[in-house]
Amino acid sequence: MPIISRRGKDAYTSPIRHLGPYADAAKATGKHVYHLNIGNPDINTPELALAAVRNAAEKIVPYSPSKGFTSYRKKLVSYYERFGIEGLSYEDIIITNGASEGILFSMFSCLDAGDEVIIPEPFYAIYNAFSYVSGVKLVTITSSIENGYALPTAQEFINCITPRTKAIFICNPNNPTGCVYTREELEELGDIVKKHDLFFFVDEVYREFSYEDDFYSVLNIKGLEDHVVVIDSISKRFSACGARVGALVSKNPQILENVNKYAEFRLSPPHFGQVLAEATLDVPESYINEVKIEYVKRRDLIYSRLSKMDDVICKKPKGAFYILAKVPIDDCVKFCKWLLTDFEYKRSTVMLAPASGFYATPGKGKQEVRLAYVLNSETIELAMDCLEVALKEYPGRVPTQRIPTNGVLKHD
Amino acid sequence: MPIISRRGKDAYTSPIRHLGPYADAAKATGKHVYHLNIGNPDINTPELALAAVRNAAEKIVPYSPSKGFTSYRKKLVSYYERFGIEGLSYEDIIITNGASEGILFSMFSCLDAGDEVIIPEPFYAIYNAFSYVSGVKLVTITSSIENGYALPTAQEFINCITPRTKAIFICNPNNPTGCVYTREELEELGDIVKKHDLFFFVDEVYREFSYEDDFYSVLNIKGLEDHVVVIDSISKRFSACGARVGALVSKNPQILENVNKYAEFRLSPPHFGQVLAEATLDVPESYINEVKIEYVKRRDLIYSRLSKMDDVICKKPKGAFYILAKVPIDDCVKFCKWLLTDFEYKRSTVMLAPASGFYATPGKGKQEVRLAYVLNSETIELAMDCLEVALKEYPGRVPTQRIPTNGVLKHD
Repeated sequence: MPIISRRGKDAYTSPIRHLGPYADAAKATGKHVYHLNIGNPDINTPELALAAVRNAAEKIVPYSPSKGFTSYRKKLVSYYERFGIEGLSYEDIIITNGASEGILFSMFSCLDAGDEVIIPEPFYAIYNAFSYVSGVKLVTITSSIENGYALPTAQEFINCITPRTKAIFICNPNNPTGCVYTREELEELGDIVKKHDLFFFVDEVYREFSYEDDFYSVLNIKGLEDHVVVIDSISKRFSACGARVGALVSKNPQILENVNKYAEFRLSPPHFGQVLAEATLDVPESYINEVKIEYVKRRDLIYSRLSKMDDVICKKPKGAFYILAKVPIDDCVKFCKWLLTDFEYKRSTVMLAPASGFYATPGKGKQEVRLAYVLNSETIELAMDCLEVALKEYPGRVPTQRIPTNGVLKHD
Repeated sequence: MPIISRRGKDAYTSPIRHLGPYADAAKATGKHVYHLNIGNPDINTPELALAAVRNAAEKIVPYSPSKGFTSYRKKLVSYYERFGIEGLSYEDIIITNGASEGILFSMFSCLDAGDEVIIPEPFYAIYNAFSYVSGVKLVTITSSIENGYALPTAQEFINCITPRTKAIFICNPNNPTGCVYTREELEELGDIVKKHDLFFFVDEVYREFSYEDDFYSVLNIKGLEDHVVVIDSISKRFSACGARVGALVSKNPQILENVNKYAEFRLSPPHFGQVLAEATLDVPESYINEVKIEYVKRRDLIYSRLSKMDDVICKKPKGAFYILAKVPIDDCVKFCKWLLTDFEYKRSTVMLAPASGFYATPGKGKQEVRLAYVLNSETIELAMDCLEVALKEYPGRVPTQRIPTNGVLKHD
């Protein structure tokens, strides 16, 4: 019997994914499960984009260029211009299999094994997986719910820099915190990456979902051309997670050259996904405006319900479609499992993401859960009814504590 | 300015891909280029499968399960049964983004950096890229055109085994050689992998394209359940390279568990590609039979034309849709470039793949080129007219030499 590799055995697994079988088992007993655990939106994909796939007239489905359809890359330039991003060429854009591949290619193209990347935690759990595959070390700065997971200060980033530091990595608007970073904050980080010769990876897949202020892209900042890599995707903004179409954007020709090598390995991004993606660029702005209105309504509702629950701490998120809440429990992994295996209310339960999976520091986030408000208001009400009862019945109840933050809540 | 990583700078690039810009430049001058350089078939994708995509009625394009559509995986079981493969469960099948991802996942899931994999050369160039990414060392056994690139003997494989050897990797039917390995040959390798506790990776994406004998899958061999990983794809058999749908098949639960971890990182395979792929399972057998007849016709034609050219050595391939030919040139990379930049015949030229890219041993394959017979007979005739003239005009002409093989041509 051949011996499996250490790399295979030790590969990162998401604590969120472990819950899947329990959800399946719950459903098998006839229990309804409200899925607030994953960012798989329920909003319709634009009809115009679906129609483009239905009307695709090709007789053969060939490889596309490794960098993606040239026509699509060209049209994307004007998409980015809508966000004030100027001076981009289609050659600065490489189409990827979703944002996931963009993150992987960024790490493979810019970083060596053992290099360090500074990232605020909590962060999107799957970054752990890509750092595992690429042998890159994520150095985290913990932000806390008490100050709305505000971006750590410039000084906190600087304190983490070592000779192995090669990049700063943020997600803006942020999954899972819902933070949207300001121009000033991004410029401050920009000064650090310039001064310390770092790469600046920014996951902007929730770009459209900034509810209070206009979104400001890191691609707008002059002088960072050699540093910035933006990771993008149509998954969230057009409810097209299954299209598997993302993009990597950079003005640094060395980065692009290397990313292209990795893009050639896997031959091409998916054909039909690109057909759909290219058509989304003709979707009128009213679509995304309506989608935003809907998410704001859901956010306000879920925030309002959560804040009225006993001993629950949360802040109103400013972007993306997630909210983190600190709840009176002993351990979020146990609680999320218990919701599926032991709890029901009106023959229903709710599935949440245990927030400990979004932290790299062991022990952090044990009292936190992430809720994705990707269901309609009526369903959110029912899911919140479940959660409210569950928090009362859960046998592992431990009161929440407001952990004092350092000094003033600058960003609150 | 941040310093790019060694891993990015040193990443493998295919010598075949370097020719792309020269082909574009040739076309820009109005020259017609016959593309025999890449396995992107010109045969129509089954209409039934295209129709499935056109008729897809979904309003949302969600993530599919990381392992792929369960319905598709279940139907694939009966597809494999057509090749006599019994006892497979859908749980033994994980859907991948083309075969490329299947190869990458196999290496990541089974092998550690520094592990050795024995592979006959010439081999599909992109395996180099995956071994680079995963830090795996490909240990090659050179086969030669004089004996039709016959599979090296069992003893030759055994001679390569070291304490770091973890796998044998073959492609059957073979790209680029066109060899189809027999049941006996596979069983001999099976004995080796069992005795030495190795994995047995077999790329079977050309399974349908065996022109002389029935194809025998390694999945048929009893007792190799823990060893075998089959990499598969719909790209070639259904002219659907852009669908990006492959599969990884194994009966070893440890491998499957690890592959699933990597599958979860990238969330899901493409939705529409899977819709198409699932529909291909309803395509009547007559489709693939007609496709095979067409490829046999093309193979016979291209072989006949090549063998009549002065000083060209080639054997008639038994499978896939490639033929390697030894031609009277100094260096195939130079020659393939010259065809695009300096040569034309009736305002046309031909694009070939320099075969040195299919060898890991430096200096090997310099007089060889690979031709993909993915164009219709009429076009192949015109392309061969070009090649015939080109071989006469090429200034770097060097006569071919038949290199004596060791002893009897066992497989000829």
